[in-house]
Amino acid sequence: MIEETLEYKAQTRLLADAGRLFAERGWVPATAGNFSARLNDHQIVITVSGRHKGKLDESGFMVVDLDGNILSPGRKPSAETFLHIVMYRRDPAIGAVLHTHSVNATVLSRLFPAGLTLDAYEVLKAFPAITTHETSLAVPVFENTQDIPQLAAQVDDYMNRHPQLSGYLIGSHGLYTWGRTVEAAVQHIEAFEFLFECELLSRRLLP
Amino acid sequence: MIEETLEYKAQTRLLADAGRLFAERGWVPATAGNFSARLNDHQIVITVSGRHKGKLDESGFMVVDLDGNILSPGRKPSAETFLHIVMYRRDPAIGAVLHTHSVNATVLSRLFPAGLTLDAYEVLKAFPAITTHETSLAVPVFENTQDIPQLAAQVDDYMNRHPQLSGYLIGSHGLYTWGRTVEAAVQHIEAFEFLFECELLSRRLLP
Amino acid sequence: MIEETLEYKAQTRLLADAGRLFAERGWVPATAGNFSARLNDHQIVITVSGRHKGKLDESGFMVVDLDGNILSPGRKPSAETFLHIVMYRRDPAIGAVLHTHSVNATVLSRLFPAGLTLDAYEVLKAFPAITTHETSLAVPVFENTQDIPQLAAQVDDYMNRHPQLSGYLIGSHGLYTWGRTVEAAVQHIEAFEFLFECELLSRRLLP
Amino acid sequence: MIEETLEYKAQTRLLADAGRLFAERGWVPATAGNFSARLNDHQIVITVSGRHKGKLDESGFMVVDLDGNILSPGRKPSAETFLHIVMYRRDPAIGAVLHTHSVNATVLSRLFPAGLTLDAYEVLKAFPAITTHETSLAVPVFENTQDIPQLAAQVDDYMNRHPQLSGYLIGSHGLYTWGRTVEAAVQHIEAFEFLFECELLSRRLLP
Repeated sequence: MIEETLEYKAQTRLLADAGRLFAERGWVPATAGNFSARLNDHQIVITVSGRHKGKLDESGFMVVDLDGNILSPGRKPSAETFLHIVMYRRDPAIGAVLHTHSVNATVLSRLFPAGLTLDAYEVLKAFPAITTHETSLAVPVFENTQDIPQLAAQVDDYMNRHPQLSGYLIGSHGLYTWGRTVEAAVQHIEAFEFLFECELLSRRLLP
Repeated sequence: MIEETLEYKAQTRLLADAGRLFAERGWVPATAGNFSARLNDHQIVITVSGRHKGKLDESGFMVVDLDGNILSPGRKPSAETFLHIVMYRRDPAIGAVLHTHSVNATVLSRLFPAGLTLDAYEVLKAFPAITTHETSLAVPVFENTQDIPQLAAQVDDYMNRHPQLSGYLIGSHGLYTWGRTVEAAVQHIEAFEFLFECELLSRRLLP
Repeated sequence: MIEETLEYKAQTRLLADAGRLFAERGWVPATAGNFSARLNDHQIVITVSGRHKGKLDESGFMVVDLDGNILSPGRKPSAETFLHIVMYRRDPAIGAVLHTHSVNATVLSRLFPAGLTLDAYEVLKAFPAITTHETSLAVPVFENTQDIPQLAAQVDDYMNRHPQLSGYLIGSHGLYTWGRTVEAAVQHIEAFEFLFECELLSRRLLP
Repeated sequence: MIEETLEYKAQTRLLADAGRLFAERGWVPATAGNFSARLNDHQIVITVSGRHKGKLDESGFMVVDLDGNILSPGRKPSAETFLHIVMYRRDPAIGAVLHTHSVNATVLSRLFPAGLTLDAYEVLKAFPAITTHETSLAVPVFENTQDIPQLAAQVDDYMNRHPQLSGYLIGSHGLYTWGRTVEAAVQHIEAFEFLFECELLSRRLLP
């Protein structure tokens, strides 16, 4: 069984650690957020629906394949599973997808429904495609919806046109980002949250 | 003795854990806050008066029945015990009632004495009665008072007219919410505090 | 030797625990803050000068008497020792004096050099002299100075005229409060910091 | 080998502890920040490039000499190594150099590209050259650049003219400060971050 492989155990441990970190910072309130990591070319491990992401144990994860089939009988995947799958299908180098739900991401997504641009920050170099601070990063905001497969198609279409995308917001809902490994994806969450805080603080200070 | 049952030990452990979490976040300053959980049809365990809620041990709890009788001789219940009892009497499905006292809840209750409305947030789905973000949640604010039985009657009357209530504020005083279990009620506290922070941050940013 | 008594060990342990709590919250940056507790009618234990208050061990404390004599040879007391002594001399019921140095206390003391008034908050009931939220608490701000004995005399004089004082601010410098025990004084610090945060947040939201 | 000396082990342990502290406070997001400590007259230990500074282990450090030669084969030093070396070369009493990257430092450096002045704060006494709060401390902001040796020369030149400098900001990038020991440098970070927070909060409150 895949749940007994070292790979599965290692990935779920990293995702549970990420959940504890995010919970301490208030980025996964109540049962918000969901996390996944790639197991192989066809399968990922993803958090089950309805759990607090700061207290994930073995029962908080399940396996699905990249067609969305449930491979852990009796477990219910996150409603947003297709937002994870779409990323793994697009790019075999993606090893982890993380969705957090911070106050700052939520408020920014409501204030800037047309998206925001992060400009000239040193921390932008945390993203793989960026090697200098003399650049800017666009963060699109997709409208929130109960129709996740339709939203996944929208994201996929957007990325066909913007292949360098590092992450996106869903309105009133939070942040999606990804990386080669769980650790890399956690760093992208930290970088985005840092930048969101900078943007909000700057806007409060400007006259 | 009920204090020696597994149920009592399990519920007090969950309430003490909740207290530590809330204390780390600054939601139960000094001796603020009080927590309770149902033991059976007629009895609840509730925090005693005057303790710091981040350091609750066995001596920090006591049993009362749903008529307000003290079943732990020599212990003094929270002045606000009746605000807990009124909830357990209303609904046998309620298993826990939590009252926290955050800066955000306090400030919002002073700025919006007529109550507030939380609108179109994904996190609203953390509340049992809500299945879509395309909704809004009213949070009434009751005036603070030293007359707790009278306030309990007011809450009871309000809920007769608004049975879907998920929580309420008391002016300059804090938040009451509840759930089927202690864990569910903790998630409702997290969801409300998240939403309060979103509301306050949004208002600071608007011109 | 008094340093070997159970009383000394218990009081220094409580003060070190308080320091760790305050450091986690950012209320004792660098070497800011100082703490003391009563040992008997004539002696107190107080933090030595120049230590980080979040990492206090046995070497971080010393004994002085209420005339300011150093009873721990070779140790240098905090420059502000007389602000502690003045309180123990005034009132034999005072068992601990705590001085913290938070961002909020510092900023409030600069914005309101004439003092501030905390009005109608439930948390005011954390202070011993207050039994209802329907009251207000005056917090004076004393001008910062390098002349501590002169400042101590000013505080003493102020308290002769306002015996119900619960704590005070020093301009650009921080908060002094006290209590019957270390635990009570820690709760007063928490209550003041909570109220300072409420005041600052309210002022940011008002038009 | 120098990596096996007690001095090396002690310094790397202190730097790793500092990193954990800064990570908890959000001052080293993603892979931001870098830290060094002096080993002897000619050599320092410094963090390697690209690591998260909250989780530093033995593999996260390397030795360079004060000419910038790499003495740990196979390891890549931080791009900003020359900003560390310039300090150790200037002053044999400097034992540690720390660079953090907080939201507040980033935002202040963008709002005040000409530098800022910290005025009349008690916490200024945390810096060795300052013995009274009745003073002010200038914090210059250098423009961010990918050309670190050139920036190091600029800092060196500035310090020839302002030998009492306690720390500086780089635009959109963060804070550099130093001290006789790692512990002293950590306290200077705490003091600067405290003062940055005070300045930002004051500016939000002023009309």
